Amino acid sequence: MTEDALTAPSGPGATPLRNPAATTAAPGAGTLLRLLRDGRPRTRSELAAVTGLARSTVTQRVDALLASGLIGPAGEAVSTGGRPPTTFSFRPGARVVLAADLGATHARLALTDMSGTVLAEDRADIDIATGPEPVLDWVVDHGRTLLESVGRHTRDLLGVGVGLPGPVQHSTGRAVNPPIMPGWDHFDVSGYVDSRIARPVLVDNDVNIMAVGEHHVAWPGASHLLFVKVATGIGCGIISEGSVYRGAQGAAGDMGHIYVPSGADRPCRCGNTGCLEAVASGHALAEALTAQGVPATGARDVVELSRNGSVPALRALRQAGRDIGEVLAASVNMFNPSVIVIGGALAQAGDHLLAGVREIIYQRSLPLATENLSIVSSKAGESAGVIGAAVMVIEHCLSPEHVETLVMGG
Amino acid sequence: MTEDALTAPSGPGATPLRNPAATTAAPGAGTLLRLLRDGRPRTRSELAAVTGLARSTVTQRVDALLASGLIGPAGEAVSTGGRPPTTFSFRPGARVVLAADLGATHARLALTDMSGTVLAEDRADIDIATGPEPVLDWVVDHGRTLLESVGRHTRDLLGVGVGLPGPVQHSTGRAVNPPIMPGWDHFDVSGYVDSRIARPVLVDNDVNIMAVGEHHVAWPGASHLLFVKVATGIGCGIISEGSVYRGAQGAAGDMGHIYVPSGADRPCRCGNTGCLEAVASGHALAEALTAQGVPATGARDVVELSRNGSVPALRALRQAGRDIGEVLAASVNMFNPSVIVIGGALAQAGDHLLAGVREIIYQRSLPLATENLSIVSSKAGESAGVIGAAVMVIEHCLSPEHVETLVMGG
Repeated sequence: MTEDALTAPSGPGATPLRNPAATTAAPGAGTLLRLLRDGRPRTRSELAAVTGLARSTVTQRVDALLASGLIGPAGEAVSTGGRPPTTFSFRPGARVVLAADLGATHARLALTDMSGTVLAEDRADIDIATGPEPVLDWVVDHGRTLLESVGRHTRDLLGVGVGLPGPVQHSTGRAVNPPIMPGWDHFDVSGYVDSRIARPVLVDNDVNIMAVGEHHVAWPGASHLLFVKVATGIGCGIISEGSVYRGAQGAAGDMGHIYVPSGADRPCRCGNTGCLEAVASGHALAEALTAQGVPATGARDVVELSRNGSVPALRALRQAGRDIGEVLAASVNMFNPSVIVIGGALAQAGDHLLAGVREIIYQRSLPLATENLSIVSSKAGESAGVIGAAVMVIEHCLSPEHVETLVMGG
Repeated sequence: MTEDALTAPSGPGATPLRNPAATTAAPGAGTLLRLLRDGRPRTRSELAAVTGLARSTVTQRVDALLASGLIGPAGEAVSTGGRPPTTFSFRPGARVVLAADLGATHARLALTDMSGTVLAEDRADIDIATGPEPVLDWVVDHGRTLLESVGRHTRDLLGVGVGLPGPVQHSTGRAVNPPIMPGWDHFDVSGYVDSRIARPVLVDNDVNIMAVGEHHVAWPGASHLLFVKVATGIGCGIISEGSVYRGAQGAAGDMGHIYVPSGADRPCRCGNTGCLEAVASGHALAEALTAQGVPATGARDVVELSRNGSVPALRALRQAGRDIGEVLAASVNMFNPSVIVIGGALAQAGDHLLAGVREIIYQRSLPLATENLSIVSSKAGESAGVIGAAVMVIEHCLSPEHVETLVMGG
């Protein structure tokens, strides 16, 4: 490992870990922690046997991990003669993570431990179009308040995760030409947050972090998962072999602008016609209902109408599900996922949307691709985004190479 | 590494490497060979410096690799005082690979070296429906003849790669419910070939190996590539981060049965209607042309007609390209590939098919997903399959863990 690798994490929008003066890492500490993250306590001998590390190295690294607080003693193992050996286990509460899920008009903030469990939450109406500085100031200020509310300090922060409602360049963590985020184009989100809170910051788009959160909460064993967010717009986060699939330019999962036959000549905000978003998004449904004399201004109104039993709203939701199903049926044949999750504001309108999706996928896709396919509503619900943002930070900062810096740099 | 891992390669349809009695591996030999496969000669000191292996370990492993023939001396480096040190380099010709690309009615066979370069070739008209034993006997018998023709023996074989024209279960390398391969369902292809030739055997479906071959020959740097085979049927092999993307059940890339609007009520052999294959495959085009009074029995006739300037054939090819483009445009938005290759028998009819594909993708896909997207004809052509089958064997058998057995087991 080079010194560059130690001081410059390579994740999306990551700022360098603190203590750039630390020139010595702790090789092996990351491997030990990776093992201990399963929650099972182990003795030094067991750790040496499983990792192949020298007993003396294990002793040193365990001491470093104990000093960092990332692990703690977990009682004694059964003695095989002589003094019973101490076991050690991961302490998920040793650090906390600040996670922000920013939407066009709403923001959610959460503090989690290192297992992704939410410790405290906050939410607010915001206007993303006011620009990055006021919105990120809100994140930092309310983040500090959340920390205080659970008796923790910024020095306890492992890092900060931020989800943005627009395309994010994976290599830099910056929004690129985001349609609904004036002022954010190429803004250095992680640099700005880091300048105010001095911890590593990771940035990704909202649908990717929702996919990560849903996978973590409800489908940790699923190898291939599609998370479809149906709200004002429509987007898809893709998990492949447990990680976010991004494609060549990081543009993968852009479902909203795929052509659907029922869209015909309907104009889309992207400039094309017949896009899925132009017929099946919350915005499109509200417009169509209003034209039918059932006034609605957005996804939330459509949900409200459907809860009140409005037949036009239920019909529109069912048809939106069918249109989304057309696109997903093709993706099932091409991608062969094991789970499709339907989330986002419009998915809260009960099972009408989901029923339409299922109807078309089961009609159109081949038996081999659907026999083990689950098509379900989001279980993580509105927390999917903040949990995913936290998991993104945890996986990045607890990866072996970063742990080896962390335990030396403190 | 456990002994199980040594004697039981885990690739698709792999049979155990020979010499199951070998209980000692050569840790580090695989790492050294992986490094040397770039073709650059290196000294023992350079190998020790780059890998971090002890100098004594490097000396032992270099000796083992020399004894196996996988590397050889490559002259002397510049002396820094004293006797100039010897350099070593990978010898791609030390072993050969037998690769078979089996179609419904044609088979191609090739012998390659360990860089995937074809040394000798054979092809024949076969009928896959005669069942696995006669077809695989042909592979083995003609494989032996190819070996003799270049003065090599079966003991020089690194392994055998086989591509089948139907779905192959990745974990076992067996065909599963293959529609055009009566008698092959769940047949143990690798076990049968291994019983006759006693080398590791890997099996995959023809479109996956064509994607691997095209990637190896023409686009080795492309991270995400779609290879579309347009022949009697239509299928897609997907390369993601340099490897075959398989999805949850290994069913990924099944493009032929995605619904296209122009298919409307056209019945497909899968039992559904409106599938891409029902309107744009060689079989569908031949039927449609025949109905128009231009007799054709399959993809090859359609190609022949187009080469002779038949306007109905050219029109049909252009429209087939558009239909394929409809499906690919959606895949571009979802997968964000950097390269789409159009191959298979129908792609040999000049640029008419490709022009239709390009027309629709550039019309339908978002600028971000197409600005760096290449849409091209196959460069590997008819050799894509055998080269891909060979590369599959090379990557599997020269992976570090297998090399470490190979150099001890001989």
